[in-house]
Amino acid sequence: MGILSDEIAGYLGKSSMIRKMFETGIELKKKFGADNVYDFSLGNPDLPPPEAVKSALESIAASADTCFALGYMPNAGYPALREKQAAKISAEQKVDIGGDRVVMTCGAAGGINAFFRAVLTRGDVVLCPSPYFVEYGFYAGNYGASLKPVASSRTDFSLDLTAFEAAMTKEVRAVIVNSPNNPTGRIYTRAELAGLADLLAGAERRFGHEIYLVSDEPYRFLNFDNLELPSVFGLYEHSVVIGSYSKNLSLAGERIGYVAVNPAMAGGDKLVAGVIMTNRILGYVNAPAVAQKIVLTAMDSQVDLEVYRRRRAAMKKVLDAAGIKYFMPQGAFYFFPRSPLADDAEFVAALLKERVLAVPGGGFGASGFVRLAFCVDEKIIENSGPSFMKVMEQIGR
Amino acid sequence: MGILSDEIAGYLGKSSMIRKMFETGIELKKKFGADNVYDFSLGNPDLPPPEAVKSALESIAASADTCFALGYMPNAGYPALREKQAAKISAEQKVDIGGDRVVMTCGAAGGINAFFRAVLTRGDVVLCPSPYFVEYGFYAGNYGASLKPVASSRTDFSLDLTAFEAAMTKEVRAVIVNSPNNPTGRIYTRAELAGLADLLAGAERRFGHEIYLVSDEPYRFLNFDNLELPSVFGLYEHSVVIGSYSKNLSLAGERIGYVAVNPAMAGGDKLVAGVIMTNRILGYVNAPAVAQKIVLTAMDSQVDLEVYRRRRAAMKKVLDAAGIKYFMPQGAFYFFPRSPLADDAEFVAALLKERVLAVPGGGFGASGFVRLAFCVDEKIIENSGPSFMKVMEQIGR
Repeated sequence: MGILSDEIAGYLGKSSMIRKMFETGIELKKKFGADNVYDFSLGNPDLPPPEAVKSALESIAASADTCFALGYMPNAGYPALREKQAAKISAEQKVDIGGDRVVMTCGAAGGINAFFRAVLTRGDVVLCPSPYFVEYGFYAGNYGASLKPVASSRTDFSLDLTAFEAAMTKEVRAVIVNSPNNPTGRIYTRAELAGLADLLAGAERRFGHEIYLVSDEPYRFLNFDNLELPSVFGLYEHSVVIGSYSKNLSLAGERIGYVAVNPAMAGGDKLVAGVIMTNRILGYVNAPAVAQKIVLTAMDSQVDLEVYRRRRAAMKKVLDAAGIKYFMPQGAFYFFPRSPLADDAEFVAALLKERVLAVPGGGFGASGFVRLAFCVDEKIIENSGPSFMKVMEQIGR
Repeated sequence: MGILSDEIAGYLGKSSMIRKMFETGIELKKKFGADNVYDFSLGNPDLPPPEAVKSALESIAASADTCFALGYMPNAGYPALREKQAAKISAEQKVDIGGDRVVMTCGAAGGINAFFRAVLTRGDVVLCPSPYFVEYGFYAGNYGASLKPVASSRTDFSLDLTAFEAAMTKEVRAVIVNSPNNPTGRIYTRAELAGLADLLAGAERRFGHEIYLVSDEPYRFLNFDNLELPSVFGLYEHSVVIGSYSKNLSLAGERIGYVAVNPAMAGGDKLVAGVIMTNRILGYVNAPAVAQKIVLTAMDSQVDLEVYRRRRAAMKKVLDAAGIKYFMPQGAFYFFPRSPLADDAEFVAALLKERVLAVPGGGFGASGFVRLAFCVDEKIIENSGPSFMKVMEQIGR
């Protein structure tokens, strides 16, 4: 024993490199001005929240001097919100789900943690396609489980079902997929998800216990080419959908999301009761009251998708001009191009010298790539062009 | 494996009795009207938030249409808030603490979880005086540790230092005290806390590792008799203070609190870095943005303590008239009287028949007592008098 547990002390040691990059970014902005630094490192939605968020806050303020205005509510969330959220999920997922299968959570991150706490036992394994959102590993680790990434195709980031089948041991308790995907921008097709579902159903029979399929969908609305976003509910019994309003309402800091349990799941009520309880005992207690009230009235609004679509086009132009190879993101707000240098950290360092901030793919389980978040002003994207060109010339390709 | 992990399935089974009581309460209110049910079961602050909360929300609404208005901020909270929170803690705790030793959290419950995740290892033990807030056990259990309650005096709920010394094994990683106390209303004296600190310092030397003293203080402002609320910071190096705005700003549902690390702690910066990280990886990510902005301007306001003081007097009168014995609460908003029946659940059932809702002491590790929350209207307290009288006559004392 020391000041921290060995596990957390170890985590801190490892994460110091990325922190240093962020600090360098802050220094660069101080030195050159924010407009002259091309910061593609962070997925912090920069569009202002839609008008409906402002109106909702005005109403919340108007009644904030009443009893219990911001007091405890049931741990699962305001009953009226659960019902309305269920109606929205029913429309999106094309299933009929009731409010009793929905739990409001402290963002998608809080939802995943509550779900993991409810179902994972020490030693369990969670699988996910790689590249992947690196926080998943911490979320599983919080409860003594471990994340095993399964490599996707390195050209179009499609699911490698053969690799999933090979990874399917009796310790596997859940598979989590993120679609549209951070960091790749990939939207998984119906055929891919159906293949994964079949494989999981087979593993359930073989091992004799439930294996969950979790669809983490905070970027659902960021679907640039109107592709089908198939629901896991219709494909697999033991499935759960987790979503959030961080991106579509630009509410990332206020922490609001949900866990929805497949209405077709036998014993699903028990799972809901478990998630309500873990939501409580993990100390969230309930999703923030103001956030719930905002979502209750602003749920159907969203930031302008067109802005993100134009930014995607602007970033494509910059990368094309520099000769950088990439998979065209279908959703979310990230490009995940190949690093032209074998060492992606070295490429990121070269970009940094030209005031471009990117994240090495190694941080997403995919060395040899870099992540560029395009939730930044279109002008910044356009102005970054010469920097990318210069770096590509320097490294001589 | 089943739908839930065995551990969570077990928890759910045990908690069903209390849930049933709450459901009965709801039914009673439907049947007899809310004014004719004397619900002392829940610690949900019923006073409206102070005017400053409303003004803060108006300002937040006014600027909600700007970029990043409610977006991510540093995981530890807005830097300006950390500084201001530190100044408030400095005044309350009579120490000089900087913003770099303060982390804003998702309520006190979120703060305790983030702290536990940062320092606990599987198999560790956390001690607390009993009767105690039953959620502590879940919070320790989340990370594979266990809570060992140490019985306090059954007359004035003072700390039993001999019992603490006896409980002090090498597995003990932390002691958590809640003062003013839920459920007893006790405020621990300087002598008690100094005695506990000495004992912990001895155990640290004996076992050669850090043992934390955590002071959980969400009821700090509810101090009816102006007693000293001594700070653990001056008494013990490895100490942490955790607080919240749930009670003093009636913000329980919006989830805002903090963790403050003793400025005198060697290696305290490492602990702060750990808590910032666990705050992130547990999925809180950061304390809710709106809550942080409310607290930034409304921090120095609070609900009217006098209202709670009058309710304490009203409840005292009711209990005295009925001949129920109790320790007079010095703070918080609970009475924790002795049950006149050996079986406190039986007494609670008798009260329920007269439309009085109380919680059996067994739920707080103290069979033979009941908890009565007086965060309800004074009229309701007064009107409950005849019901208490009737029950006491029935059980014939």
